[in-house]
Amino acid sequence: MSDEETLKRRAQAVFPRGIYGHLSTRLMPENYPQFFTSAKGVRMTGVDGKVYIDYMCAFGLNLFGYGDEEINGAFVKQMLATDTLTGVSPVMVELAERLTGIVTHADWAIFVKNGTDATTLGAMIARAHTKREKIIVAEGAYHGFAAWSSASPGTTEAERAGRIACTYNDVDSLDRAVARAGDDLAAIFATPFKHDILIDQIEPDAAYARRARELCDKTGALLVVDDVRAGFKLARDCSWATVGVEPDLSAWGKCIANGHPLSALLGNEKARRAASRVSYTGSFWFQSGPMAAALVTLDRIMNTGYLENIQTLGRALRDGMATLADRHGVGLRQTGPVTMPMFLFDDDPDHRKGYRWCSEMVERGVYMHPFHNMFISNALTMDDVGQTLEAADGAFRALVAAGPELAPNTRLAALSA
Amino acid sequence: MSDEETLKRRAQAVFPRGIYGHLSTRLMPENYPQFFTSAKGVRMTGVDGKVYIDYMCAFGLNLFGYGDEEINGAFVKQMLATDTLTGVSPVMVELAERLTGIVTHADWAIFVKNGTDATTLGAMIARAHTKREKIIVAEGAYHGFAAWSSASPGTTEAERAGRIACTYNDVDSLDRAVARAGDDLAAIFATPFKHDILIDQIEPDAAYARRARELCDKTGALLVVDDVRAGFKLARDCSWATVGVEPDLSAWGKCIANGHPLSALLGNEKARRAASRVSYTGSFWFQSGPMAAALVTLDRIMNTGYLENIQTLGRALRDGMATLADRHGVGLRQTGPVTMPMFLFDDDPDHRKGYRWCSEMVERGVYMHPFHNMFISNALTMDDVGQTLEAADGAFRALVAAGPELAPNTRLAALSA
Repeated sequence: MSDEETLKRRAQAVFPRGIYGHLSTRLMPENYPQFFTSAKGVRMTGVDGKVYIDYMCAFGLNLFGYGDEEINGAFVKQMLATDTLTGVSPVMVELAERLTGIVTHADWAIFVKNGTDATTLGAMIARAHTKREKIIVAEGAYHGFAAWSSASPGTTEAERAGRIACTYNDVDSLDRAVARAGDDLAAIFATPFKHDILIDQIEPDAAYARRARELCDKTGALLVVDDVRAGFKLARDCSWATVGVEPDLSAWGKCIANGHPLSALLGNEKARRAASRVSYTGSFWFQSGPMAAALVTLDRIMNTGYLENIQTLGRALRDGMATLADRHGVGLRQTGPVTMPMFLFDDDPDHRKGYRWCSEMVERGVYMHPFHNMFISNALTMDDVGQTLEAADGAFRALVAAGPELAPNTRLAALSA
Repeated sequence: MSDEETLKRRAQAVFPRGIYGHLSTRLMPENYPQFFTSAKGVRMTGVDGKVYIDYMCAFGLNLFGYGDEEINGAFVKQMLATDTLTGVSPVMVELAERLTGIVTHADWAIFVKNGTDATTLGAMIARAHTKREKIIVAEGAYHGFAAWSSASPGTTEAERAGRIACTYNDVDSLDRAVARAGDDLAAIFATPFKHDILIDQIEPDAAYARRARELCDKTGALLVVDDVRAGFKLARDCSWATVGVEPDLSAWGKCIANGHPLSALLGNEKARRAASRVSYTGSFWFQSGPMAAALVTLDRIMNTGYLENIQTLGRALRDGMATLADRHGVGLRQTGPVTMPMFLFDDDPDHRKGYRWCSEMVERGVYMHPFHNMFISNALTMDDVGQTLEAADGAFRALVAAGPELAPNTRLAALSA
């Protein structure tokens, strides 16, 4: 048995059904590796020694690659001085000053550990601010695993009673949702673009974003942008800067400390009083190591061309993929911002094509995702893109050769349906 | 203006109302420092250069002191290899095997970041397991900031509709709460002892713990011990091992990685199926650095006399304090396990005495808490206890001298009332 198989079997015993959450590989092709021993730049080494170019960046946690020496150096230095303690490191204040200086709408910050903490505090603060309960979220959007925004077994109807769904980018649907909330609207939540799993990604319509802002201004509700996944991958500001709309609150996480655990809720003056009345705390929320790492990350974000670079790399990948798909006669849809690409195949309702293609890519040393958006790292190079396209050429050929014998994965087919 | 005052003022601007949560000093005596530049063993150095013996251990996050070189060494080594990535490090499996080997009732683990994540997953899994909604918690107990267990502004009545209160250690009250739940009981939650703020701590009555177990067995509900604060400070197992009762689920956090951010929910076979059906994930939950730190911490817990040592140190502190209080004619109540002591003063309903005494202790370089339980670190020495008692001698003298001019802190008095 390979090391990978042994570890999977051991994990099956000591976790409820193996590795859970977004790092479960139950819905991935069988040859996907789950266990790794090292990572550097955009490359991860599996326990069986195989090296992969990683297009997931730990699901968006790092923007500057794995093991960035300058960022990790700042982390270790701070961690050794004071990481968690009965008090606060000055770096926490510095970081809040820096973030509120960068993100236009933000006047204050609350640092937390999970993206879910940030979105949930957003909901609580909006409810405390308005003394109302209804929260509008787009159908299918993921805002964390907390009960107010989840339909998981173990959550109750009552816990999510405040949620009203609308259709992303559909102004009429948003108007109807606001009407449905009556005089009880606390917040409108929005992701920067529609980045749900399994579907073509949808860029935000500026008219929709503006209407959400207007409706909040009219009703006194708060507008919350959930930038946990997309933050700093679209703009050097809250992502809705790209459509000219400022929220009252924004939720951040993932890459702000380049992989070190740190999330944040940012808010404006209007929301400050409510934010100071709500009760919240976390054992590790004041950990200063990740904050020092975040200061270096933010310097990089503000003072380098990382954004233009990942856009250039993402465009090169997109163009190369389009050419290859065309050459092989395969209908490939590439959606979402070029820095957060989603690849889906035409006539592939149960994702059997994407599944097989990704499996062929992994076989060729490129780790892509068949049904979740990917992330372009600033540590990627044009050579890496070239190597990726070479792998893709082979993967397309194998996909075409497999032709009609392709079978769906039953679990994924069920999820797609 | 001192560095401390400057930082407090800056924090006031960029956080909703200064540093929040359990590290806010709004309810602490005015001379309490909030900002620190370094920490080692049991000593923290404030931004103004003053050194304090810390009896809070970062609110229980470290058991082996700040900056433990062996634990931090394991952390850094793992962090540099793989910390967060698109996959899992083998150390995650090792740690789950180790923890489920140590904690008698546990067959599986879910690693998370906050104590609140662990308790909330406990509630969700109990609800999914039973397909019922009612959760019994003891009046006044803290199980995290999530809406199901909080009465904070911004939470809704509906979100906490499932909660039923009982009185800790009162079997009749527990029976009545179960009767009130009817056929809808999902879980009984319990802290290992009653460690609420502002009150004398109450050790668990074995009859109460056994009755909770019986009632869960009878109704099919799950028994959940919230060991986030007390874990490994009372036993080398779940803390209710001290009263001979095994829960179905236990929530862990704080010290399992000696200050590195890691929490966990542990569960038994009975709860496994439900745990595998509930949806949960977190961006940083798979971070491997803290897991490597936890492995060293657990080795220390299982293979050294740390527990007997902190009990001996705690007893020496308790005995010394009792002698001093007596000598100064001050009524001091020391409650809770000796490893997690609470000091409260007789005839002190608004905590003005405790407040002043702690203020005198901080003046003398000892950081104690006027209304929250404290923590004895294994890095503390008998010399440190001696230094503490010397400070306490002066603090008691100053308290007695202040006599009738003592004034209450208005905020704390309001909270006490």
